[in-house]
Amino acid sequence: MGGDVFFILMGAIMVLAMHAGFAFLEVGTVRKRSQVNALVKILVDFSGSTLAYFFVGFSIAYGMSFLDSAPIISGAAGTGYQGQGYDLVKYFFLLTFAAAVPAIISGGIAERAKFYPQLIATFLIVGLIYPFFEGMAWNNNHGFQDMVESLTGARFHDFAGSIVVHAMGGWIALGAVIMLGNRKGRFTADGRAIGMPPSNIVWLALGAWILSVGWFGFNVMSAQRLEAVTGLVAVNSLMAMVGGVITALLVGRNDPGFVHNGALAGLVAVCAGSDVMHPVGALATGGLAGALFVWAFNFMQDKLRVDDVLGVWPLHGLCGTLGGLLCGVFGMESLGGMGGVTFMSQLIGTAAGVLIGLVSGFAVYGALKATVGIRLSEEQEFNGADLSIHKITSTPDEDIVR
Amino acid sequence: MGGDVFFILMGAIMVLAMHAGFAFLEVGTVRKRSQVNALVKILVDFSGSTLAYFFVGFSIAYGMSFLDSAPIISGAAGTGYQGQGYDLVKYFFLLTFAAAVPAIISGGIAERAKFYPQLIATFLIVGLIYPFFEGMAWNNNHGFQDMVESLTGARFHDFAGSIVVHAMGGWIALGAVIMLGNRKGRFTADGRAIGMPPSNIVWLALGAWILSVGWFGFNVMSAQRLEAVTGLVAVNSLMAMVGGVITALLVGRNDPGFVHNGALAGLVAVCAGSDVMHPVGALATGGLAGALFVWAFNFMQDKLRVDDVLGVWPLHGLCGTLGGLLCGVFGMESLGGMGGVTFMSQLIGTAAGVLIGLVSGFAVYGALKATVGIRLSEEQEFNGADLSIHKITSTPDEDIVR
Amino acid sequence: MGGDVFFILMGAIMVLAMHAGFAFLEVGTVRKRSQVNALVKILVDFSGSTLAYFFVGFSIAYGMSFLDSAPIISGAAGTGYQGQGYDLVKYFFLLTFAAAVPAIISGGIAERAKFYPQLIATFLIVGLIYPFFEGMAWNNNHGFQDMVESLTGARFHDFAGSIVVHAMGGWIALGAVIMLGNRKGRFTADGRAIGMPPSNIVWLALGAWILSVGWFGFNVMSAQRLEAVTGLVAVNSLMAMVGGVITALLVGRNDPGFVHNGALAGLVAVCAGSDVMHPVGALATGGLAGALFVWAFNFMQDKLRVDDVLGVWPLHGLCGTLGGLLCGVFGMESLGGMGGVTFMSQLIGTAAGVLIGLVSGFAVYGALKATVGIRLSEEQEFNGADLSIHKITSTPDEDIVR
Repeated sequence: MGGDVFFILMGAIMVLAMHAGFAFLEVGTVRKRSQVNALVKILVDFSGSTLAYFFVGFSIAYGMSFLDSAPIISGAAGTGYQGQGYDLVKYFFLLTFAAAVPAIISGGIAERAKFYPQLIATFLIVGLIYPFFEGMAWNNNHGFQDMVESLTGARFHDFAGSIVVHAMGGWIALGAVIMLGNRKGRFTADGRAIGMPPSNIVWLALGAWILSVGWFGFNVMSAQRLEAVTGLVAVNSLMAMVGGVITALLVGRNDPGFVHNGALAGLVAVCAGSDVMHPVGALATGGLAGALFVWAFNFMQDKLRVDDVLGVWPLHGLCGTLGGLLCGVFGMESLGGMGGVTFMSQLIGTAAGVLIGLVSGFAVYGALKATVGIRLSEEQEFNGADLSIHKITSTPDEDIVR
Repeated sequence: MGGDVFFILMGAIMVLAMHAGFAFLEVGTVRKRSQVNALVKILVDFSGSTLAYFFVGFSIAYGMSFLDSAPIISGAAGTGYQGQGYDLVKYFFLLTFAAAVPAIISGGIAERAKFYPQLIATFLIVGLIYPFFEGMAWNNNHGFQDMVESLTGARFHDFAGSIVVHAMGGWIALGAVIMLGNRKGRFTADGRAIGMPPSNIVWLALGAWILSVGWFGFNVMSAQRLEAVTGLVAVNSLMAMVGGVITALLVGRNDPGFVHNGALAGLVAVCAGSDVMHPVGALATGGLAGALFVWAFNFMQDKLRVDDVLGVWPLHGLCGTLGGLLCGVFGMESLGGMGGVTFMSQLIGTAAGVLIGLVSGFAVYGALKATVGIRLSEEQEFNGADLSIHKITSTPDEDIVR
Repeated sequence: MGGDVFFILMGAIMVLAMHAGFAFLEVGTVRKRSQVNALVKILVDFSGSTLAYFFVGFSIAYGMSFLDSAPIISGAAGTGYQGQGYDLVKYFFLLTFAAAVPAIISGGIAERAKFYPQLIATFLIVGLIYPFFEGMAWNNNHGFQDMVESLTGARFHDFAGSIVVHAMGGWIALGAVIMLGNRKGRFTADGRAIGMPPSNIVWLALGAWILSVGWFGFNVMSAQRLEAVTGLVAVNSLMAMVGGVITALLVGRNDPGFVHNGALAGLVAVCAGSDVMHPVGALATGGLAGALFVWAFNFMQDKLRVDDVLGVWPLHGLCGTLGGLLCGVFGMESLGGMGGVTFMSQLIGTAAGVLIGLVSGFAVYGALKATVGIRLSEEQEFNGADLSIHKITSTPDEDIVR
């Protein structure tokens, strides 16, 4: 049992670190005037997520609550709590997944969203919406998996959350971004995109590296038990990451933002099937995701004219969706996979996740927009979220003339 | 045994990484002219700590020395060394704690302290002072714990070092900062504080994130044995961190420095009782610490007019002290805790640590001030520690016109 | 078996993170105009290395290929694959070592090398050259170790790769740097060095910290099995790191670049003998390496006039060589070591590695120079690799006037 606690704890710590990665990826990608806001938003939304998931969300997903006394938590009594606080650290591990959803959304709505309304959205999403689908997919709540199996002969397989986490986050973000509207000056009157260049490629790269490294905890530790760990998940994650880098490099013509996000695109897509694909299948999955990301990012900017600052809908929404589906392709034994999955079961589960995310995004942010408002004033946006919300820039020593 | 070595090794590695966190937190909080000095000081003080604790400190605390031959170290013989070098990696783990004390002090004395005198202080503190109290608290040296137990019915409980590490570091720092004096220009002649804004919020945030993530090794691996690990410590650390973020956000009015240090305040305070509190008690502990930090930071600046650059006395000194005491409150069974602690035992142990730290800080830095001197010249300080000590700025390519 | 997979997986993750360290060390050390290129080059070379080692290199070194179907990979069948994908994660771990070689070279050739020819070199080095010697040293390929043992009475001992990884990388880099030529303006017509100051000491320090922390995975997890782990390796790594810091500080006169690279110099040198030295021997090894690095860096610049931007030949080439040899000195029982090594066996193995590296460097980069060309045009170099190759600077928001 100590080994299991240690194992899943290391996963939790690595995915906790990924939240720093979300923060620095956003810091580097936004304009300089919004760097501080990115940092505070990620840390505070993570904190809100912790509370929402501890007091509400975890029990929605798994029917288990921690509001008992510590002696029970310690595992002394036979109340379903396991020894050495395993369930507590399992909560910690799964919280870091749940909290990824607002961290994903954060990148889409950057630079012009109000601070506290976003915190309310975080409570709703992590407390209610995310665990609702999480429980369906990972705990067979409402008999969802039984239903999928009776229809298709297999359960919906999402090992580490291409759909449960990433597609959910990306599709909610799409609604949030559309409800929020584009940054002022992002497009000309006739709809041409005006570049709003990232503030700092080095911070962007640090964020991507932290996310990529932490992802090996995200994926491998999703086994949750030491006896279930497999090196296949690790190598498939590696292969998908590499596939995403290579195609994003080529399709994105050496652009550093695309290359580093390409790694993430591959990792998003491989979550679902990382335990059932052959490494070459994982490489193909990552490669497709890297190319899809670059294409969809440009499509969203140039054709849809939707200002998703970090490209979180292409990255998490589309590449997650792709990964949910490809799990049903490259997971098949005929393509070198481990089998036990079908394309139809993946299609149903993926569609369910996407639909819930899409509807929730418009609902939550639409309701907030209609009530408390979700957008900074024009003047606040012009001055930047840093000065407007936090009364400080990211480099005060240089910016303040004395 | 391999499992125990692996377990405590991961703790040591995580707390080693925290020293990078100390460095970047200081880099971001000082003015730009002192960034390089922050980096070099932390790395060199860590190195000095390693030697002081290896050759002197560890044997003071635990009566065990490594100056024997390698075959013995390898655990072949029955000399008290355990198999697979467990005691060596335990030394490594505890060194990373010991070395945190000069890293804490470093943040208080930043921007105006001489370099090599600080290295002498590190040897004295890590070689002698820290292990003196560490041994009393964690190894019952001088019968300290027996005495506390006979007086109060319980031992002084400091699971991961709210007092042994943090209060010790923070209270020594108070003496150091006062002996050193304020930065030139920090206060007007009539005592009004003049802002010396931090150089870079992003580096500050990176430091805080590295510290926060590493803290889970600091706290959880303090169990030191795989069979003793518990998820309760992990979740209590998380809850305290989150509590600190939330209250620092509210009391500190969205200030990014307060929010990120709020996480650290909560983590400082929860060290002592992280294995005996209920998660809701840990949340309260962290929340109180976050608010205390913001209040005391402002109080120190505006009323005491003491120039503690990173606020290490409020952060480590006061929040550590608070945590030592609250362990005796929220650890009680009546408040959902695991019991086995009393407020009186916590009060005695906490007071002992605070007193030793306070006296030592004035003694060590007073003696150095009276002999070798501890402060840069006015001109050196004006030019900045980077140019004065290291002959280079933090961004030489930009600063040197060619 | 789950424990072994977990153990070596954590090593792989830590050494994967070291590649971020290579990237940021290069970012901080090059001029600002080459920061983006450093980031993309490291990530893409890592990706190329993954493919080269997966499809070719690993089977050259260990005679094992993964191009079978996933059910076999999962360990279900008795084909030599071990349970839970242990061999897959062992591949991952050893890949992160192999990929360090192009990451080392990258720092030497920075700021003026073409992008895609370097990727070709990566394929040749990681696919063929590195695994050729790796197999000789670590898998007794071609009866190399039998031969060394028959000549000297002991096998060539290189526990974690002072020679196999670091000397190999550093000596290949020497050939690459010489074939490439110096940066324009690096030396005057009469051969005097003109400083090309690093862009950012803070990024340099972050890179060094990430490398240093990850190194504990590099060294300790080289045991590859939980039952073989020993705390001696961890503490010897720590001691060597500290020794390198201290001597680089003193010999390098407080220079931050030297201090941070001093830690790395010590760690490079201790890899070979970290499992057989006494901690005091490891301290001496690291101390010698730190001093050697500073001296050789200056010698290379002022006397040899070779423009090795990050000093990778002194750091990895020379300190690695030193470490291979000192393993045969401080590993001896008469000096407190564990024994089982001889200076002659170390000399033969070290010489073999150095020779293969030196010849390969000139051969690979010479062939590429004669065919596709390896150097940017003068104009491209003047504009900087960032703008020339990636069409963007590292701080676009500031650099683009709108």
